[in-house]
Amino acid sequence: MTGGQFLGDGPAVLAFDVGGTDTKAGLFDEHGSLREIVRVPTPYSTDGSGDAVLTQLAVLAGQFAARHPDIAPRAAGLIVPGLVDDDAGIGVRAENLGWQNVPFRDAASATLGAPVAFTHDVRAAGTAEYHLGAAGRFRNVMVVVIGTGIASALFIDGKPYSASGYAGEIGHAVVDVGGAPCACGGNGCLEAIASAGAITRLYNRDAAAPVAGAREVLDLARSGDALAASVWNTATDALGLALSQAVALLAPEAIVLGGGLAQAGNALFAPVEERMNSFLTFHRRPVLLPATVGENAGLVGAALGARSLLAGAQA
Amino acid sequence: MTGGQFLGDGPAVLAFDVGGTDTKAGLFDEHGSLREIVRVPTPYSTDGSGDAVLTQLAVLAGQFAARHPDIAPRAAGLIVPGLVDDDAGIGVRAENLGWQNVPFRDAASATLGAPVAFTHDVRAAGTAEYHLGAAGRFRNVMVVVIGTGIASALFIDGKPYSASGYAGEIGHAVVDVGGAPCACGGNGCLEAIASAGAITRLYNRDAAAPVAGAREVLDLARSGDALAASVWNTATDALGLALSQAVALLAPEAIVLGGGLAQAGNALFAPVEERMNSFLTFHRRPVLLPATVGENAGLVGAALGARSLLAGAQA
Repeated sequence: MTGGQFLGDGPAVLAFDVGGTDTKAGLFDEHGSLREIVRVPTPYSTDGSGDAVLTQLAVLAGQFAARHPDIAPRAAGLIVPGLVDDDAGIGVRAENLGWQNVPFRDAASATLGAPVAFTHDVRAAGTAEYHLGAAGRFRNVMVVVIGTGIASALFIDGKPYSASGYAGEIGHAVVDVGGAPCACGGNGCLEAIASAGAITRLYNRDAAAPVAGAREVLDLARSGDALAASVWNTATDALGLALSQAVALLAPEAIVLGGGLAQAGNALFAPVEERMNSFLTFHRRPVLLPATVGENAGLVGAALGARSLLAGAQA
Repeated sequence: MTGGQFLGDGPAVLAFDVGGTDTKAGLFDEHGSLREIVRVPTPYSTDGSGDAVLTQLAVLAGQFAARHPDIAPRAAGLIVPGLVDDDAGIGVRAENLGWQNVPFRDAASATLGAPVAFTHDVRAAGTAEYHLGAAGRFRNVMVVVIGTGIASALFIDGKPYSASGYAGEIGHAVVDVGGAPCACGGNGCLEAIASAGAITRLYNRDAAAPVAGAREVLDLARSGDALAASVWNTATDALGLALSQAVALLAPEAIVLGGGLAQAGNALFAPVEERMNSFLTFHRRPVLLPATVGENAGLVGAALGARSLLAGAQA
């Protein structure tokens, strides 16, 4: 993925995607090319602070500076998972990373000595799809990322909408009252039925031989495994229902599906679209589109955020 | 309701609320007082045009002019039901009134000889609640009107959001897959289960003696009628579920409930809030508030729309 012309000309920037398992760091040069990408394990915060993460960002920035003395990044984009208050610049919480109410934006800016754009990982991926990918032709559009979990980024009348970090949580809308338990503490959330993680878990719960991922469940379904087909169909039905509910409320012109599960292509898109449309009558039917920016969409969105801090500046 | 100081000082305006059964016309004076309100049956359009409605508006405006020669309205607000494209000024369709794609805004402006603000009846009621009522303290808020049907007006980051007329149709989000048939052609829509019309219909379907309205169903439920209690509880459960789904997606700070069913007060609000919150975990819980503008909220919203066309003008 490195070396691609992603962003166009503009200031060089750093981008950090702090994930639940790994952190990806990227260096974008003055042509908007991703010159290097580094992946390291994300440190767990034992004290509730984000200090270990911040230290790691400084180390990664130092490595880039040493290896690329010709590139002088002038801002950074930082994205994290969990509940994120974009406006306040705070990582409110991320249960599986151990922090709470960390003022990441200001702390990272002090650590790196540069302005920092800070947001949620899925909203950053949405920004990338909106500015460089499938979503940009539309003023009202949802970008739904289906991976281990499910979340979405909303663009309303051409602007991102985050509601202090609480918007877009379609993965934690209940689609099956009293259904499968969800990591959030609820039951029957979309994420507990239709995420790649849930598909794997629900198959393995009843299967004779466990699988490693949702892709295998799909392969088994295609080869005639009734349990796999049932789990897959339940997932696509739930996605179709949840999307139809979002359509009734928001009437997006398009819905972009990304994340690991969207790699399934037509095996996902066809049944989800059919199910969604089966619930729509007079409603405006959205176009369902695959995400196009690719696996580094979050990182690209972080870089776009960093660039936007320098709007008007020249490379 | 007439004579109340609703809008504050500003230009005199006309307001027309073309409803599915009746049309209400109101004359607001330079102090923002509703000086007269007239109610007449809405004419059905046999030819698909809105001509009969437009003729009626002219007659009503003429009557106001004759009876109130001291008041010179400088603009009008017109609201209609069905599918309404605010931006284009078009009444796209209203099945039970017979029109299709009527350019109401421009036609009414030509008929009345004044600028016309045109929108959907529920969005106008939302505007009234946002500017004069319960919703105005919040930047992100839903105003849900529960009457014969169910629809909502959305305010996102302080601005009304209509998506060319398709947004806010929470009444036509499916909450019971394969459930009761809905007037829209779907099944299991919220409106088919939890509107005042549905509550009446679902009770009468199985009751020994039919009732005239949802209020009677509530009275029967309170007096121990098991069928009435079941219908009422199913309705409030469905409302709680649908609102929780909207919260997951939009995270409004508040949800305002208006329309006839909201007159039930705590018998509606308490179970709906309890049910909604039962589906929320990390989500931001919205405040649930009753609408405060009253039964003429649509008309008041229409008048506010007319006033906004004259922004900056003096009375």
